[in-house]
Amino acid sequence: MKTYDVIILGSGPAGLTAGIYASRYNMKNLVIGKEIGGQVAESYEIENYPGFLKVNGIELAEKFREHAERIGVELIPFINVLDIQKKRNGFVVKAENDMEYFGKCVIFATGARKRKLGIKGEDRLAGRGISYCAICDAPFFKNKIVGVIGGGDSAVSAAVLLAEHAKKVYLLYRREKGKMRATPYWVMKAEKNKKIEMVFNAVPKEFAGKDKLEYALFDCKGKELKLKLDGIFVEVGTKPESELAKKLGVRTDERGYIIVNHDMSTNVKGVFAAGDVTTGSNMFAQIITAASEGAIAAESSYKYIKQTSRA
Amino acid sequence: MKTYDVIILGSGPAGLTAGIYASRYNMKNLVIGKEIGGQVAESYEIENYPGFLKVNGIELAEKFREHAERIGVELIPFINVLDIQKKRNGFVVKAENDMEYFGKCVIFATGARKRKLGIKGEDRLAGRGISYCAICDAPFFKNKIVGVIGGGDSAVSAAVLLAEHAKKVYLLYRREKGKMRATPYWVMKAEKNKKIEMVFNAVPKEFAGKDKLEYALFDCKGKELKLKLDGIFVEVGTKPESELAKKLGVRTDERGYIIVNHDMSTNVKGVFAAGDVTTGSNMFAQIITAASEGAIAAESSYKYIKQTSRA
Repeated sequence: MKTYDVIILGSGPAGLTAGIYASRYNMKNLVIGKEIGGQVAESYEIENYPGFLKVNGIELAEKFREHAERIGVELIPFINVLDIQKKRNGFVVKAENDMEYFGKCVIFATGARKRKLGIKGEDRLAGRGISYCAICDAPFFKNKIVGVIGGGDSAVSAAVLLAEHAKKVYLLYRREKGKMRATPYWVMKAEKNKKIEMVFNAVPKEFAGKDKLEYALFDCKGKELKLKLDGIFVEVGTKPESELAKKLGVRTDERGYIIVNHDMSTNVKGVFAAGDVTTGSNMFAQIITAASEGAIAAESSYKYIKQTSRA
Repeated sequence: MKTYDVIILGSGPAGLTAGIYASRYNMKNLVIGKEIGGQVAESYEIENYPGFLKVNGIELAEKFREHAERIGVELIPFINVLDIQKKRNGFVVKAENDMEYFGKCVIFATGARKRKLGIKGEDRLAGRGISYCAICDAPFFKNKIVGVIGGGDSAVSAAVLLAEHAKKVYLLYRREKGKMRATPYWVMKAEKNKKIEMVFNAVPKEFAGKDKLEYALFDCKGKELKLKLDGIFVEVGTKPESELAKKLGVRTDERGYIIVNHDMSTNVKGVFAAGDVTTGSNMFAQIITAASEGAIAAESSYKYIKQTSRA
C-alpha cells in the first residue's frame, strides 16, 4: 500500500492549496478528489479571487491544478473516496479505483454542495442565469431583474445584496411569511428596500429559456406565476460533504459542518479539515477562505507529523 | 470631509482584498497604505500563492492593485496614516497628505514587519540571498548551504524546514544554548537533524557579497566566524503595526497583535482587522491567509453597516 505523510481528500481550492503547502514542507502528499477545482469549476465567471480580475471557473481550477502538480503534489483526480479507516499510526483511504492508500494524517477538504431545487430546466441553465452564489455573481446583474429563491438568511441577505446592483429583486419563498427562517433583521432590511418585492407561497416549478434563463415558473396556491428574469439565485441551503469524517468520529455542528480549531485540527488526532466543509472562516465560503484554510491545515499537519515521528 | 462606508488601513494582500470585497458589496471604500502589496512587494519570488506558479513580489502586488482599482476600490498609495479618532458615528482618519477622511467603520490591515538585524550589508543584499520568510523561500535553496539567525521557534523551525531542502543548515544564535526561547520540541528536532549545525554565542556582524550574499561574519566571543553561505534566513522576530489601533482601545495580545474574533471584529465596535497584524489564521502569516482575512473583515463590515444604518 502506498504510504503518504498526508492524504488530502478533495481537489477544490482548499485541497489543492493544502497540497501546495504540504509540498513546500516536503511532505509526501496525495490529493484525491471528485472534481478539479470543486465548485469553482462550476462557476461561470469569478471576479473575487484576488490577483485575477476576471477568470472563468474552469481556467482558475486549471491554474490551481497546474500549480499543485508542478510543485510536486500527487493528484488522483475524478475519483471518489469510498471509505476511510483509522489504523494504528494513521489512516487507510479506500478509493473508487480499488486502490488503498495509507496516510499518517488526513485533511478533509471535501467541500459542500449548494442544494438544488431539482426542477425542470435547473441543470441545463445552471451558470446561464441560474446562480448558487450571490456574492460571487451579484455584480453581473447590474440594472437587471433577478429573483432569489429561499427563506433563510442566505436567501434574504442575497436579495439585499442583489438590490445593490440589480434594478428589481423578487424574493420568492415557498411558504407563508411567518414560516421564514431568516432572522428578523434581514427580513426588515428586505422589507424596507424598495427594489425588493417579496412573494410568498411561491413554489418553484420550472426554469425556462433557450440558451440562458428567460423566465421562471412558480405555483402560487394553484395559480401559475410566470416571472421574466435575467437571473435567479437559488439559496435553499448547503450540504457539507462530511459523511466519511463523521464515520471516523469527527465532530460536526448540527448542520454537519466539521468543527475545526484555529489550526484546522479536529477532535480526532491526525484529522484536519479545510474549506467549505468546515466551520472555519466565519462560514464565509469563498475561494480565498478555502485556500487559506488549506494552507493552515497543511502547516498543522506538518507540525503533527514532526511531533509524532521519532526522527 | 470625504465620507466612506469603510476605510481600510494598509494596502497589502489583506487591505486590497478587503477593498475588493467591500466593492463587491457596493460599499464606498478607501484603502490607504504605505506600500502597495506590503511585504509581498519585498519578496523576490513567490511560489505559494495558489494560481500563480511563480511570480515576483512586485508583479503580484501590481495584480492585486489592478484588481482592486478596476473593481472600484479608491486607493491612496504611499501615504502614512498619522492618526485615527473615534467620532460619534464612525472614525476620522488623518493622513500624511494633510487630508482627513471619515469612515463609518475601519479595517486595520496594517501588517507586520520582520525585525531586521541592522547590520552592514543587510539592506543591500535583502532578497539577494537574505530572506525573512523560510516557508516562502526554503525551496529555492535545494542542496545549498544556508544559515538561520535566531533562537526562537520561528528560527529553529525554519532550520528544520530548510534541512528538508538544503544540504547544510547553520543555526546561529547570539547567546548560549540555555537562553534559547524556542520550545524544547523544536530544539530537539534540530539537534537530531544531521544536516543542522547549531552555533552558539554567534553575534551577526556583517553580510557580504558582490551582487548576492556570499558570506556572513559573526563575532564569537571575540573571535571572527566567517561562513560561506548561499542564503541566510533572519528570524529574530516580528513587530505588528498596531500602534494606532491600540490608541483606539483595540485589544492586542502581549506581543501587540490585534485580537480578532471569528468574523475579524475586535473589541471596539466598528473596528475590524485583517492580515499579519492580527492573531487570526493560527498566526500563519501568509499572502493567502491575509487575503482571506481581508475578505472576511469586509463581509463583517458590510453586515455592521447594514445593522447600524437605519435605512
